[in-house]
Amino acid sequence: MPLAVDLFDTLRTETVDGEGVSRESYGAGEQFAHDLLRKTAATLGLKTRVDFAGNLYMTLAGRDRSAPGWIAGSHLDSVPMGGNYDGAAGVIAGLVVLAALRRCGEPPPRDITVMGIRGEEASSWYGGSHNGHLGSRAALGMLSASELQAAVNSRSGRTLAQHVADAGFDAEAIAAGRTALERERFLGYLELHIEQGPVLENRALPVGIVTGIRGSARLRSARCVGEYTHSGAVPHEYRSDAVLATAELCYRLDKAWEDVRRAGGDLVFTVGKLYTDPKAHALTKVPGEASFTIDLRSQDSGTLDMMMARTRALADEIAQRNRVRFELGEFNLQEPSVMDQGLRDMLAREAQGLAIDALAMPSGAGHDAQDFERAGFPAAMIFVRNAHGSHNPHEAMDMTDFALGTQLLARVLAT
Amino acid sequence: MPLAVDLFDTLRTETVDGEGVSRESYGAGEQFAHDLLRKTAATLGLKTRVDFAGNLYMTLAGRDRSAPGWIAGSHLDSVPMGGNYDGAAGVIAGLVVLAALRRCGEPPPRDITVMGIRGEEASSWYGGSHNGHLGSRAALGMLSASELQAAVNSRSGRTLAQHVADAGFDAEAIAAGRTALERERFLGYLELHIEQGPVLENRALPVGIVTGIRGSARLRSARCVGEYTHSGAVPHEYRSDAVLATAELCYRLDKAWEDVRRAGGDLVFTVGKLYTDPKAHALTKVPGEASFTIDLRSQDSGTLDMMMARTRALADEIAQRNRVRFELGEFNLQEPSVMDQGLRDMLAREAQGLAIDALAMPSGAGHDAQDFERAGFPAAMIFVRNAHGSHNPHEAMDMTDFALGTQLLARVLAT
Repeated sequence: MPLAVDLFDTLRTETVDGEGVSRESYGAGEQFAHDLLRKTAATLGLKTRVDFAGNLYMTLAGRDRSAPGWIAGSHLDSVPMGGNYDGAAGVIAGLVVLAALRRCGEPPPRDITVMGIRGEEASSWYGGSHNGHLGSRAALGMLSASELQAAVNSRSGRTLAQHVADAGFDAEAIAAGRTALERERFLGYLELHIEQGPVLENRALPVGIVTGIRGSARLRSARCVGEYTHSGAVPHEYRSDAVLATAELCYRLDKAWEDVRRAGGDLVFTVGKLYTDPKAHALTKVPGEASFTIDLRSQDSGTLDMMMARTRALADEIAQRNRVRFELGEFNLQEPSVMDQGLRDMLAREAQGLAIDALAMPSGAGHDAQDFERAGFPAAMIFVRNAHGSHNPHEAMDMTDFALGTQLLARVLAT
Repeated sequence: MPLAVDLFDTLRTETVDGEGVSRESYGAGEQFAHDLLRKTAATLGLKTRVDFAGNLYMTLAGRDRSAPGWIAGSHLDSVPMGGNYDGAAGVIAGLVVLAALRRCGEPPPRDITVMGIRGEEASSWYGGSHNGHLGSRAALGMLSASELQAAVNSRSGRTLAQHVADAGFDAEAIAAGRTALERERFLGYLELHIEQGPVLENRALPVGIVTGIRGSARLRSARCVGEYTHSGAVPHEYRSDAVLATAELCYRLDKAWEDVRRAGGDLVFTVGKLYTDPKAHALTKVPGEASFTIDLRSQDSGTLDMMMARTRALADEIAQRNRVRFELGEFNLQEPSVMDQGLRDMLAREAQGLAIDALAMPSGAGHDAQDFERAGFPAAMIFVRNAHGSHNPHEAMDMTDFALGTQLLARVLAT
């Protein structure tokens, strides 16, 4: 696939940042990627269009232009010093499919549009006061005016609205909830993406078919408050130890996670940050405070509900027994997205036809596909095996695996 | 007790530092306290002497000057922005006893020396490369030459040896292991000190008789090393979660502590610091590292041995099951000091005679008394009730409790 190899190489060379690549949402690196894809599509004789939010559409006309078409896409931005494949692989795969279909001369049965999406990684560039996935939500009329003002670029200090305008797009149209994609004009949304976990790598399988995108229930800044006292002179019954109380909460949620796994449920549980106060803590002080985060993710919203309730109940019980107070705050809840069963069945059949051993698996990370699903589009995803995770310069996708994923995508888009 | 009240007031006024007091080891505040006590003792007609390490001795001659005498003391330095009573109370109590005995005209049966000790709080002023308790250990020939060089003042950057010399004392004599106190000249060492925990306060008792000073087994910079991965995309079986492994270690040591308490054993267990790496951690990353400290204290060295072994065994088991590595480092072990049974019995009898309800209790914090015990002196301690802990400006010792403790001290010193 010389086209894909050339595009990946050019993208890497032109957006390199130390060891990795940086393609800032509504910044220079992302714009370079959009320009490169648009010019390449034009060269291939495809129709191109850019919407009010800066998303790129590259369309191959089908035989029946009035029939609802396919839309396939992914994002062209990256995290800072990220990998070259997270996002871009899905857009390049789509373009490779269009190029191949065009080369064979015969138009496909229906229009196929490949979308280069803006700002999926915006949480890495614009702080946390928005819900991310800017481009897909803008195109679907789901990005709110308040987010455009609340999301502030961590380097420039300017709002997302200003950055969108600077990049030449129409923040007011976004704020007004205009849509660039009419639901009835599309049969469904397909997204090819590298797997961000190690599952395919560990199972020695090239391709996955995503069953659903895990929802999440998150505590961004939970605290346990106890009392600082002397670690030698204060007996157990007079202590309010924030660390031991928090350790018990973590341990018992870990056990609850084990119960869910044993029962065949889908769940991951992470305490990514846990820290005593560096200004106040000491080897010889009973810790009076511990701060922590909780990230619960599941394909099943009932499991998330159960774990949120369990977290609160355990915190109450532990607090009472240990004379501490938990300030958990509110869970930030993102509902799971189930991928369309019809599209999944289609992908599974086509994979079998291609003799590709494809694994049905959840996506633990969020993707633009979930926004299409929320907007009522049948949506599905193809995962491509990738070593070393994503969001780092060491992403390692084999081009033969990429080719298999792209063939699978082509089979659905050409129907 | 106008003498005690005056001395406490002057000390506070002249060494005030914001809300608290600062009497730096071998610094100006400590020197002020030594000068004040020495002048007061001279005014009272006591003999005074200062040893090569700067410790102050105030002696009331007894009837039999050749008989072994009593030595009572405590330290005159404080932590930065500390309380007025931690240390000074013991020296002032001794001086009050000598003043009272002198006033009554009749000399006591044997010499009584009150010692104002240097540098007990040195770990707050000279970093951690020494074993603290500078004055008592110097007087007893137990402060090593290497500590004098390794202990560096955290403000001046100069060594302890230089500060001792600057203050006018003989660092070389200390390094040579000279002793200022001959064991055979003393019947025993007595120290009155405020309680640094809440036990007497909570039990509504004015005075405690210390059974022993807890030893400690400490891990100053333990780590758990796992692997940073995506919190959503990586299933349980591929995670190496440093926080959940460390939380389990803390939780299970907490349970082991509960077992010791239930069996009537003496132990406190503290994880004073616990933190993920602020440069690498994130809400959405499985944590690849957790750093922590462990402080185990007990009056019983067997309990410390058992808990050290338990810590290592649990860490091994948890590491294997969770695909992480614990780097515990070596335990820093300080053996417990048992207070002299004969002196404790004497104190208990005298307390009964004075109708003082005195509680037999361990000291969780270290004191100069443990160095005397190690040097072979029979040693004992009287605790005085104190609210709000110590090492802070809010120490609250009632003068009526101080008077009861001082009376108890006087009874023993006058025998």
